[in-house]
Amino acid sequence: MALMTAEQYRESIRKMKSKVYIGGERISDPMDHPVVIPSQNTAAMTYELAQNPQYQDLMTAYSPFIEGKVNRFTHIYQGIDDMVKKVKMARLLGQVTATCFQRCTTLDTANALFIATNQMDKALGTEYHKRFLAFLKELQEKDYHIGVAMTDAKGDRSLRPTQQPDPDMWLHIVEEKSDGIVIRGAKTSQTGSANAHYTFVAPTAGMRKGEEAYAIAAAVPGDAEGLYHIYGRNAGDDRKYDAHSFDMGNPKFSSQETLLVFDNVFVPWDKVFLYKEVEWAGNIPFLFGANHRQTYGGCKAGVSDVLIGATKLVAEYTGIDKLPHIRDKMAEMVVLTETIYCCGLATALEGEKLDTGSYYVNQLLGNVCKLNVAELPFKIARLAVDIAGGILGDAPGEKDLKSPEIGKFVDKYLKGVAGVPTENRMKLIYLIQTLLFGFNSVGYVVESVHGAGPPQAQKSSLYRLVDWDHKKNLAKTLTNIKD
Amino acid sequence: MALMTAEQYRESIRKMKSKVYIGGERISDPMDHPVVIPSQNTAAMTYELAQNPQYQDLMTAYSPFIEGKVNRFTHIYQGIDDMVKKVKMARLLGQVTATCFQRCTTLDTANALFIATNQMDKALGTEYHKRFLAFLKELQEKDYHIGVAMTDAKGDRSLRPTQQPDPDMWLHIVEEKSDGIVIRGAKTSQTGSANAHYTFVAPTAGMRKGEEAYAIAAAVPGDAEGLYHIYGRNAGDDRKYDAHSFDMGNPKFSSQETLLVFDNVFVPWDKVFLYKEVEWAGNIPFLFGANHRQTYGGCKAGVSDVLIGATKLVAEYTGIDKLPHIRDKMAEMVVLTETIYCCGLATALEGEKLDTGSYYVNQLLGNVCKLNVAELPFKIARLAVDIAGGILGDAPGEKDLKSPEIGKFVDKYLKGVAGVPTENRMKLIYLIQTLLFGFNSVGYVVESVHGAGPPQAQKSSLYRLVDWDHKKNLAKTLTNIKD
Amino acid sequence: MALMTAEQYRESIRKMKSKVYIGGERISDPMDHPVVIPSQNTAAMTYELAQNPQYQDLMTAYSPFIEGKVNRFTHIYQGIDDMVKKVKMARLLGQVTATCFQRCTTLDTANALFIATNQMDKALGTEYHKRFLAFLKELQEKDYHIGVAMTDAKGDRSLRPTQQPDPDMWLHIVEEKSDGIVIRGAKTSQTGSANAHYTFVAPTAGMRKGEEAYAIAAAVPGDAEGLYHIYGRNAGDDRKYDAHSFDMGNPKFSSQETLLVFDNVFVPWDKVFLYKEVEWAGNIPFLFGANHRQTYGGCKAGVSDVLIGATKLVAEYTGIDKLPHIRDKMAEMVVLTETIYCCGLATALEGEKLDTGSYYVNQLLGNVCKLNVAELPFKIARLAVDIAGGILGDAPGEKDLKSPEIGKFVDKYLKGVAGVPTENRMKLIYLIQTLLFGFNSVGYVVESVHGAGPPQAQKSSLYRLVDWDHKKNLAKTLTNIKD
Amino acid sequence: MALMTAEQYRESIRKMKSKVYIGGERISDPMDHPVVIPSQNTAAMTYELAQNPQYQDLMTAYSPFIEGKVNRFTHIYQGIDDMVKKVKMARLLGQVTATCFQRCTTLDTANALFIATNQMDKALGTEYHKRFLAFLKELQEKDYHIGVAMTDAKGDRSLRPTQQPDPDMWLHIVEEKSDGIVIRGAKTSQTGSANAHYTFVAPTAGMRKGEEAYAIAAAVPGDAEGLYHIYGRNAGDDRKYDAHSFDMGNPKFSSQETLLVFDNVFVPWDKVFLYKEVEWAGNIPFLFGANHRQTYGGCKAGVSDVLIGATKLVAEYTGIDKLPHIRDKMAEMVVLTETIYCCGLATALEGEKLDTGSYYVNQLLGNVCKLNVAELPFKIARLAVDIAGGILGDAPGEKDLKSPEIGKFVDKYLKGVAGVPTENRMKLIYLIQTLLFGFNSVGYVVESVHGAGPPQAQKSSLYRLVDWDHKKNLAKTLTNIKD
Repeated sequence: MALMTAEQYRESIRKMKSKVYIGGERISDPMDHPVVIPSQNTAAMTYELAQNPQYQDLMTAYSPFIEGKVNRFTHIYQGIDDMVKKVKMARLLGQVTATCFQRCTTLDTANALFIATNQMDKALGTEYHKRFLAFLKELQEKDYHIGVAMTDAKGDRSLRPTQQPDPDMWLHIVEEKSDGIVIRGAKTSQTGSANAHYTFVAPTAGMRKGEEAYAIAAAVPGDAEGLYHIYGRNAGDDRKYDAHSFDMGNPKFSSQETLLVFDNVFVPWDKVFLYKEVEWAGNIPFLFGANHRQTYGGCKAGVSDVLIGATKLVAEYTGIDKLPHIRDKMAEMVVLTETIYCCGLATALEGEKLDTGSYYVNQLLGNVCKLNVAELPFKIARLAVDIAGGILGDAPGEKDLKSPEIGKFVDKYLKGVAGVPTENRMKLIYLIQTLLFGFNSVGYVVESVHGAGPPQAQKSSLYRLVDWDHKKNLAKTLTNIKD
Repeated sequence: MALMTAEQYRESIRKMKSKVYIGGERISDPMDHPVVIPSQNTAAMTYELAQNPQYQDLMTAYSPFIEGKVNRFTHIYQGIDDMVKKVKMARLLGQVTATCFQRCTTLDTANALFIATNQMDKALGTEYHKRFLAFLKELQEKDYHIGVAMTDAKGDRSLRPTQQPDPDMWLHIVEEKSDGIVIRGAKTSQTGSANAHYTFVAPTAGMRKGEEAYAIAAAVPGDAEGLYHIYGRNAGDDRKYDAHSFDMGNPKFSSQETLLVFDNVFVPWDKVFLYKEVEWAGNIPFLFGANHRQTYGGCKAGVSDVLIGATKLVAEYTGIDKLPHIRDKMAEMVVLTETIYCCGLATALEGEKLDTGSYYVNQLLGNVCKLNVAELPFKIARLAVDIAGGILGDAPGEKDLKSPEIGKFVDKYLKGVAGVPTENRMKLIYLIQTLLFGFNSVGYVVESVHGAGPPQAQKSSLYRLVDWDHKKNLAKTLTNIKD
Repeated sequence: MALMTAEQYRESIRKMKSKVYIGGERISDPMDHPVVIPSQNTAAMTYELAQNPQYQDLMTAYSPFIEGKVNRFTHIYQGIDDMVKKVKMARLLGQVTATCFQRCTTLDTANALFIATNQMDKALGTEYHKRFLAFLKELQEKDYHIGVAMTDAKGDRSLRPTQQPDPDMWLHIVEEKSDGIVIRGAKTSQTGSANAHYTFVAPTAGMRKGEEAYAIAAAVPGDAEGLYHIYGRNAGDDRKYDAHSFDMGNPKFSSQETLLVFDNVFVPWDKVFLYKEVEWAGNIPFLFGANHRQTYGGCKAGVSDVLIGATKLVAEYTGIDKLPHIRDKMAEMVVLTETIYCCGLATALEGEKLDTGSYYVNQLLGNVCKLNVAELPFKIARLAVDIAGGILGDAPGEKDLKSPEIGKFVDKYLKGVAGVPTENRMKLIYLIQTLLFGFNSVGYVVESVHGAGPPQAQKSSLYRLVDWDHKKNLAKTLTNIKD
Repeated sequence: MALMTAEQYRESIRKMKSKVYIGGERISDPMDHPVVIPSQNTAAMTYELAQNPQYQDLMTAYSPFIEGKVNRFTHIYQGIDDMVKKVKMARLLGQVTATCFQRCTTLDTANALFIATNQMDKALGTEYHKRFLAFLKELQEKDYHIGVAMTDAKGDRSLRPTQQPDPDMWLHIVEEKSDGIVIRGAKTSQTGSANAHYTFVAPTAGMRKGEEAYAIAAAVPGDAEGLYHIYGRNAGDDRKYDAHSFDMGNPKFSSQETLLVFDNVFVPWDKVFLYKEVEWAGNIPFLFGANHRQTYGGCKAGVSDVLIGATKLVAEYTGIDKLPHIRDKMAEMVVLTETIYCCGLATALEGEKLDTGSYYVNQLLGNVCKLNVAELPFKIARLAVDIAGGILGDAPGEKDLKSPEIGKFVDKYLKGVAGVPTENRMKLIYLIQTLLFGFNSVGYVVESVHGAGPPQAQKSSLYRLVDWDHKKNLAKTLTNIKD
């Protein structure tokens, strides 16, 4: 098959009957639930665009592993250009959905595990890479969407996993069987877990001697016995129940985040890629980190493009778009957006070929990219609020506009320049409201800070990666300091 | 009476039967509507705290006009100290409600109209000040909450009022009668209009010759014939319908903003304070502006205090509060908060006594204050998101926590440090979510940018107020430049 | 005497014959040295302006201690208004000199020692306050300029004083005699030490048991035996040797910083204000800190005023001052400047009366003030560079303008708008260059960061001062969290 | 020849006997003048490193025009990789010299003129490209350093060239002869003009009908009759006269900026590349702009590397480098530095092949790059000042350290951690002082703002380049808005 259509993707997920909970209750068919549908639309776009002839080069790639065309979201980097295209693909999807399309997890984790298992096998003589390759082929052939579960519940962050009063606060191995293992714990802020065929489980940090039970990487199907997808509440998520209304802002697309509970989930050995090797546990999130941090340089730039377009239109619709200060602010929004994109691109360009045969991004620049992503969207948001006006916070809605009694007032008084229907202005105001303060804000603002770990994780990682000696030697040479 | 209790205030509003529309329909009793109730709770706090012995000095003042104690929100400044206390009162109410308490409009407008009408009478021989004083006494004695309606619908912002295709896009006089006048138009983003006894109508900008019909200031009762309060939609406002749930974040308090339509509203002469004097039209928003811009130095600092407190608790509940970078970020949140407060205080301190007998804030610093308010809350918000963690965007809610089926998982896995119930952590996460991305965000983030006019209005105003010659002369003197 | 004229001040310093070194050599008469003269001019302005009838209210005060008029720089705060006027006086002197006028050290330290000695006597039954009062009267009557020596050499900052390989890296007591004590060590970045009659010596941080020798506060005359003033090099200081040239930028005023070496300096008992009481050592820099941090809200705003004036003139001289982006940037320079000033004022306004009888600033806001000072001047500087143009970095100088050969070219091609001599534009360019990159930059940029301690010192201090519980309780109350 | 050694370069310039003025007087041999020597050392590094086998790939390229190896500074881009290497070469030279190495002007202008003349010939049937190719071959074969003269004196910036009281304020054609033309005017802030073999003259902005005389591009030898190089004064330039002292900070390298006066300079026709074609005048600075704006992403990152290295060493030398806040600030310096580098790289990566056969950078990203360069070095500078300490502004100098009288004090008290000579710490303090406030500040701080035009020029340019329609359509599609 290798490339599914969006419809095939939806069907494949529908068949799984994963246990999804919203508002404390299990929902019968996630594919038909108003809160879930927009998130599926978004994930489905990663399949739909791959069918589009216009985007073949960007959305698909040739895989040497199955010797055929695959969705780029399942591709192992074969060159610098693959990493560049990843960023461009992410920007495209951000532009088309204005939210988190979830499936970058597949790409970023597969590439990390490809390297990590290879390195382990070389060092330890294990067979993880062989196992992983087998699963990779399945993943590529069946065109899976696979999430990544790293962020443990963690409990008291000042304590190590084994020091927690409750040993389950970090996901761990609770039983070893002949045919596999049983794991327990929970992973939070799980992007698109209920829209995914599988979830890659991996440690969220390095482990130490004595913490063997917490050193586990594996692949778990979304409908595994004991796996619970508990939907998180985004700000403004109730609007999804009224999907016909333009008050929803972005009427078609949203992200999906869950609390993913592993209540004694069994994993067969062939889906286990790390097992108690504590000294290798940190390598997986480390390798994943830079990959994923780079992605934000694309996807958040794409969402920003939508925000910029909406803001520009609102300015035009109210006749302020030619004011010098508005033009300066619009330009500034572009500068900030392109800055994170540049960081994403450079992270690819400065990547390298590893002895695993695959390519890998520049770790240092990946962290630089994400640290900018954690700052600049707030500046972009402020500019958008400034330009869009106070109405952003308190516009009447579609029911007001269409009210037999007062609709005429809303239509009359929210009108901007001649020739533009009031409704158009209102739709854009709600799009912006949803991006910045509604259910899309989690994908644009919160995730920009915390995706791929919080900024301090990137700062620490970066600090270790800097070649301080090189910089110090430059200064010493210039000042004739001899050690 | 002079000082109403909160209950008396509620009753006084309930009796008015103002025409309030939500979702396109007129609601029968605004005082009982779940969307309106939290906004009334907030407005009512301006009455409740004035009854509290602890806050007498801050919340009340002696009025020479009625020779008795009044709520400070109805007070005309008799000294620098009154302006200082205004900022402190605003901070207190921001701290107690974490949202916009609406009634600063009464104080800021009454002080502006007191001066403006006085200046007009002196210059023009009119009787506006006499009229205003009569109404002021009523306002103080009856302890009114009065809103201010300045921001016109405006249509195409590149056109003057008379150039608009629809002449109603700026509120204007449509008829003069023997006993009063008739006005038409709409004012947007009306803070607390449905919670107010009256609304002060005033121009939003200076007017020119030929625009006489647009030069109008007046007081209009909230239940005037032809007056429509159309509720605006805040991000996340649906949560108010589920007020028993902690998902509401701030379960008791919200702001209120409406589109206020004047569909041929009659105003008797004794409530008219500006009538076609175009050259004086700009003076009212100008005087109001600095007053109101100063207020933000108090109220937004107060809301920030809540955000800081909630963020600190969340950090403690997860055991990260002692990390150096968390401490630095917490300190930074305080610095930003106190900076806007300092600006508010200095705006008072550098105020002066006018020949109207009343005091007035420092205009330049009022604009400095508001320009900082338009920037810093976004920085504070980013820090709060950084510290509170990704869970801020996607925590399960109260129904999840209390679900017979999966409540145990939520309770177990969202737990932080020992001894703190999971529910407490969740409540604070929802408080922060509501402040930054939910229905309180309009009062904290959007209003910080656009309240008292957009930043560019403050910048222009400030530019005109700077004594450039003084600064230029300093430089000339130092460099011996003689003109 | 109580108030000296500038000339009397100069004479009083000239008589002292302090040991001042420049370029490694002792200079014969500091009062006649081209590098020192501008710094004396600046210090002398604190005397000159106090003689000016226009500034009596700001520059002088009534002292209850000598029952007469004193220079405000020697005054102990008797009310909130005194602390407000301190900030205004500092701004005035910044405006008039565009550099560091040095003498705020007298005021800020005297007020700290007044309180500290009072508290010690109450707690310990010592006589430090009595001693200090005696010296205070002398200081006020003789109108002294007194510096403050806190910042120790410190050596390896990761080691405590007693752990240093060289015990002198922190100033300490080396001998106790019947009539006094002998101290050794050095204090760095000493503002105006060679222009001062005395220097107050105090610890730069709290001390612990075992560090008694390092707990010392005292007053030492500038020409004490064993005291060496070693002039520091400011960027661009060589221009002072060519004082007739406008290339000097600020031809009359500079700051002064020295490395002040105490090579076994004797101090009589009556000038000793702390002696081995380690638990009280930290109190002095703590009390001094907030006082001094507030001052920057005035003085740096004053220097910014000059920079703003010069930048505005340069914009006018080249015909760009009416461009919208230039106006916005000029306004932004003002906003940043007034923000630090507001912080300075609010630090005074929120001060309080202590049981020492004197007033004290608000510690928390003093730290807020300084933290803003440590950030905003860099933003102001960037705006000034943006507006002033690239010529700021590489303008020809006065010799070029006056060259018989090529002066005509410089005059012709550096001319801006009609009617303004080229020389005027050039003078202002050099003023700005000197403020941002020349010898005044130490007083505007470096000192803004490090004066009264580095930003991290303020952040730590602030963190301890915040009433976290109050903020946390606000959030708990709103969310109904009971402990 | 194609590749000169540094010595050959110096000889080639020495032979030219250009008219260079310093302090109003013509200097006899610029190659021997202490103010000029460091700037030559810097320019010479572009030759020296090209001889270094280690840097062959980066510093040289194969030119199809002379069919041989050329210095990359004279190369016409033959692919994306050439533009990437340009940024890397610029960073290398910034790292090695810590200042402006001047010769990027050759590369950036040659590539712009290559395209511009090609486009003109195609559109107008002129022979400019043929002329340019001939000169290009000479330039590559003789390994010229060529400056670019764009920024006119401009006089009153609110007036067009022909409206100026003095017609020479913009460089213009004053006479047409059979063998060439005569030009008059002046160009300011000329980077390295006295170190260059030729200067490319070009308009600084687009020209309009009636301004034909101002539409001129040409190549002029540095020693042309009537050409005057008037040295500009950098902050702190006097230190160059004392080159043996470490107070110079960067003892070997500086930039060079002149006021370049064209006092009736004759240019033969074969060196004229634009002549009165007003509609094509703006194309040259436009094409040059993005090229040059990209360069800053490399060179200023290189200078930042030195600043980072020096700051890190100073932190280590005083024992503070392991403090969490210092580590965070060091990391932040790196993030800011790499951000501008990423922008430079992405500007190359997103470039394209033109129908001229050569490649060209991405214009939009070039402007994004420069706008970041105009902001971030100020933030880097602030962090460096914060970490390096107050001593940065006022350290004693080498003469103090070596003084028989007080050298022992300086050596003793400026010492940091054990094992590091005091002199090393002092050298680095002076390096930082020179980079931020001394003669290198023009190349790091001022030029970062104004190089390749002021930020507002980049903002305007960027605004025109953005594909607003694409962004608007994204928003319309998402909200179902049909036009």
